[in-house]
Amino acid sequence: MLYTNNCSELTKNDVDKEVVLCGWVHKIRNFGKFAFVDLRDRYGITQLSLTGEQYSASNLKNEDCIRVKGKVVIRQDPNPNIPTGQIEIKVSDIEVFSHSQLTPFIIDDKTDALEDTRLKSRYLDLRRPCLQKNLTIRHKMLKAARDYLESESFLEIETPTLVKSTPEGARDYLVPSRIKKGCFYALPQSPQIYKQLLMISGLEKYYQVARCYRDEDQRADRQPEFTQIDVEMSFCQREDVLNVIESLLKKIFKDSISYSLPDFERISYKDAIASYGSDKPDMRFDMLLKDLYPILSKSEFAGFKDGYVKGFVVSDGAKLASRKVQDKDNELLKKYNLKGIYIKVENSSLTGSIVKFFSEDLQREIISSLDLKEGDLLIVANSNNYERLSLGLGALRIEYAKKLNLLSPDCFKPCFVLDWPMFEKKEDGTYESLSNPFTRPRDEDVYLLDSEPEKVLSYAYDTVINGLELSSGSLRIYSGEMQKKVFDLLGLSQEDIKKRFGFFVDAFNYGTPPHGGFALGVDRIAMLLCKTDNVRDVIAFPKNLSATDMMAECPSQVPQESLDILGLKIVGDDHGNEI
Amino acid sequence: MLYTNNCSELTKNDVDKEVVLCGWVHKIRNFGKFAFVDLRDRYGITQLSLTGEQYSASNLKNEDCIRVKGKVVIRQDPNPNIPTGQIEIKVSDIEVFSHSQLTPFIIDDKTDALEDTRLKSRYLDLRRPCLQKNLTIRHKMLKAARDYLESESFLEIETPTLVKSTPEGARDYLVPSRIKKGCFYALPQSPQIYKQLLMISGLEKYYQVARCYRDEDQRADRQPEFTQIDVEMSFCQREDVLNVIESLLKKIFKDSISYSLPDFERISYKDAIASYGSDKPDMRFDMLLKDLYPILSKSEFAGFKDGYVKGFVVSDGAKLASRKVQDKDNELLKKYNLKGIYIKVENSSLTGSIVKFFSEDLQREIISSLDLKEGDLLIVANSNNYERLSLGLGALRIEYAKKLNLLSPDCFKPCFVLDWPMFEKKEDGTYESLSNPFTRPRDEDVYLLDSEPEKVLSYAYDTVINGLELSSGSLRIYSGEMQKKVFDLLGLSQEDIKKRFGFFVDAFNYGTPPHGGFALGVDRIAMLLCKTDNVRDVIAFPKNLSATDMMAECPSQVPQESLDILGLKIVGDDHGNEI
Repeated sequence: MLYTNNCSELTKNDVDKEVVLCGWVHKIRNFGKFAFVDLRDRYGITQLSLTGEQYSASNLKNEDCIRVKGKVVIRQDPNPNIPTGQIEIKVSDIEVFSHSQLTPFIIDDKTDALEDTRLKSRYLDLRRPCLQKNLTIRHKMLKAARDYLESESFLEIETPTLVKSTPEGARDYLVPSRIKKGCFYALPQSPQIYKQLLMISGLEKYYQVARCYRDEDQRADRQPEFTQIDVEMSFCQREDVLNVIESLLKKIFKDSISYSLPDFERISYKDAIASYGSDKPDMRFDMLLKDLYPILSKSEFAGFKDGYVKGFVVSDGAKLASRKVQDKDNELLKKYNLKGIYIKVENSSLTGSIVKFFSEDLQREIISSLDLKEGDLLIVANSNNYERLSLGLGALRIEYAKKLNLLSPDCFKPCFVLDWPMFEKKEDGTYESLSNPFTRPRDEDVYLLDSEPEKVLSYAYDTVINGLELSSGSLRIYSGEMQKKVFDLLGLSQEDIKKRFGFFVDAFNYGTPPHGGFALGVDRIAMLLCKTDNVRDVIAFPKNLSATDMMAECPSQVPQESLDILGLKIVGDDHGNEI
Repeated sequence: MLYTNNCSELTKNDVDKEVVLCGWVHKIRNFGKFAFVDLRDRYGITQLSLTGEQYSASNLKNEDCIRVKGKVVIRQDPNPNIPTGQIEIKVSDIEVFSHSQLTPFIIDDKTDALEDTRLKSRYLDLRRPCLQKNLTIRHKMLKAARDYLESESFLEIETPTLVKSTPEGARDYLVPSRIKKGCFYALPQSPQIYKQLLMISGLEKYYQVARCYRDEDQRADRQPEFTQIDVEMSFCQREDVLNVIESLLKKIFKDSISYSLPDFERISYKDAIASYGSDKPDMRFDMLLKDLYPILSKSEFAGFKDGYVKGFVVSDGAKLASRKVQDKDNELLKKYNLKGIYIKVENSSLTGSIVKFFSEDLQREIISSLDLKEGDLLIVANSNNYERLSLGLGALRIEYAKKLNLLSPDCFKPCFVLDWPMFEKKEDGTYESLSNPFTRPRDEDVYLLDSEPEKVLSYAYDTVINGLELSSGSLRIYSGEMQKKVFDLLGLSQEDIKKRFGFFVDAFNYGTPPHGGFALGVDRIAMLLCKTDNVRDVIAFPKNLSATDMMAECPSQVPQESLDILGLKIVGDDHGNEI
């Protein structure tokens, strides 16, 4: 190699050694007779000491890529913040590999450059130590995942990414075929069908770090292509799969950021909605939703007499809920068709416009049963729609946690959400899958499939940390008959099934094992580990919210010839223009 | 898990244990009063012993997926060929997870089913132990590669697969954009530009197991999507990269098939062409091509008087070269515009129609200088085109090695081919890149760039094992000026460069480190390790030679609506028909 040491490893123990370092000029302090240069590489920074002559002869500028020879010497002003802070290199020779123009933004963790500017010169943005650290954590995370899965005899098997288009809600990216003109491949939304086929093949324990694609309108934490750790196993029960997920995530957190995840809580979908108002419960704090109907229906307030009444207590929260805050809360609640009712404990009694409907006895009962203390806040809402009521209050619960600084990014509380309903009954009376159409119903609920499908719970499970869904999965149906029944309930015609899943349904006829699996969202876990809420901070070359690569300027127009070869023509007026 | 043991691990030491096994019915031998069933899983086979009643009650058929409980007992007729051959399971309970229909072919390593039939039911084909073994070797190979690269501080970084289309010979697969109608992404032919940008970013040591795509007409060993181990490093010299390749491949062969690769030979491109008649020299055997001009130009034969004369000696080969074989050889040589001249050593003297042009002295000189023995064969050809002559004889050399059984798949001879020319001068006088346009010329040849570019050698290197090119790579240009000069020589206009590589050329302006790398073809290495010459034997779900997935039946037509969303129209008459 062209160097003897990296920029993070030389210390007092190396004094007097002749060394060669390579890297980028991070910072220059020129004092005329001599100059200090901070040399930066992937590992860290080392200070170089140059004579005035050396400095002017080399014509160094920030971000030049250079190589220096020199001797390790003790530094006059040590810097205790970096590992090399006690030494510097007395330079004897400088080679400039290539000079740098003035960079469009300063290469430093702290930057006020717009994200678009940074994305346009991503190769410079990626010089920022914080992004290099993120990519290193992501690397460690994938290594940890593989180490664990391989220790458990999972086989990494690559599945195709030019697959059959089977629209499932989200839109496929299509790839036109040149050989079969007018026909298309799709890029996979997940390797779901292939991994189940691998189980039918008897490969028993599969994993893959799989690139997946979804042509959806972008949200802040979505990219057109994303990565998942995709796992499937045979001859297993739900507990077996949950164990794999839990052990895998513990290993990931341990190996990549030295964090010991606690044992995973388990909560049913029903309880998650009831207590957290979310199927992605954030367990970093309590402030649980409570069913207040039993007590508040005793009041004179007509709204509490029927329907559902729920609420939550914000400890010491009375001072948070000014009129202005309440108005803002109600903007949020309005989306759920709710209105917040605020009760505070002030001077040992309840206050708020609703209190006039409460007898003194009832007030005492409320205080004692909810264990209300001076300065507490109770937020209540009522509705005839249980789910909307829960979700609305759940969203508000998160807002109050933010106000109280309860959402620490340094604390991770994992849980499994279990026992999901198989189906959601839509307003037109049809059924929709709550996870995917291959999910197996719970044995004890199978008898309800014909009569009350909406009551059937499934072997689906989600993994949630800090309110972020990291993984979803399920035990799968392994009987062809059961699969057919579920397709029927979902309103898929024989023809639909044959066209979309024909080969998959055929495969069920040849001895299918019980199996199940999950997919972990790599980008989301990386966001947790790197403590960022911007998915682009954990991807080397991300696309922006318009699914555009700002640096490469793609998607882009292609020569007419390329389209002719594919037998395609662009139609419409918006040729090449963003819509 | 639903089992206590897999089907390969129970031995005499487990006798009397109560166990539970899961797997597939591999073979049934029914003797009426009792029956033996071979139960198969990913790991192996265990014999089950059933009573006649159990057998008829369970209605077992081949490939049923079942679970059995029972006791380990000593087997009457041990099978020494399998690890579990000394025991069987006296079954107490059978659960059939799912019965199998009659499979379209027998699930066994030996099969006479057509490949298309197997590909159509790939999930059954993959039950064949030989394919499971191949996928396991491929898994081990990737694990070995990662283990090595991670131990050397390479960071695994994912690069995008929705990239800008930059046509480079082979054709891009295109992906239409929905948001920017009329614009397209391309699927990457390699992560070349992104990995070089990562070096410019200072990430210094990168690797990725990258999916790549090429829309070329398929050959037997090509797939539309393929996998490569993609590596790039900074501040390195050629030796540093070669060391990484050599150590990596040694580790791969060791960990996946327990084979110790010998140290890698090094040969220049020039010598490879001269001695092996190939830039992919097969070093499992000698039979080197020799320059015979110095000696044969002494003969009376006019054809040997000018141009080039080369040949090779086939030890004990006289008996191989019947008139019929010679005719067949000449069909091969004809492609190179050559004709073979055959000289045999019979009864201590040379025979063949050419010998009449050789004096007795010359005959003796030929015998002694080439060390010819009784029964040897010397094949000679001549041409004015040195390269064609070498390549033609090189191809014939391989044919004779086949006849002599010298191409053992159990022996691996690796080499590096070094010092490739930078450019090939085409007939129209223009220059073409022999590797890729980012390859750096050798320091000592740079001065020739302006005057005689065809003489400039580069820091490109190929890795070849047994005549198969496994990897190619190079040190890269890191000076913007040099890159521009090379683009110029390749006839790329300023506009072309800007359009195709604009952002990449810009990046060179901000301090680019010296860097280099390589890409290893995963499918090809897997073929070597698995000792198959069919690439589809080392891929779980391959496409056939028409780039079609026989099982999923893709590419396929998509609904008109999907095309409308993309602003595309299919043109021409061959809508959906293969051309």
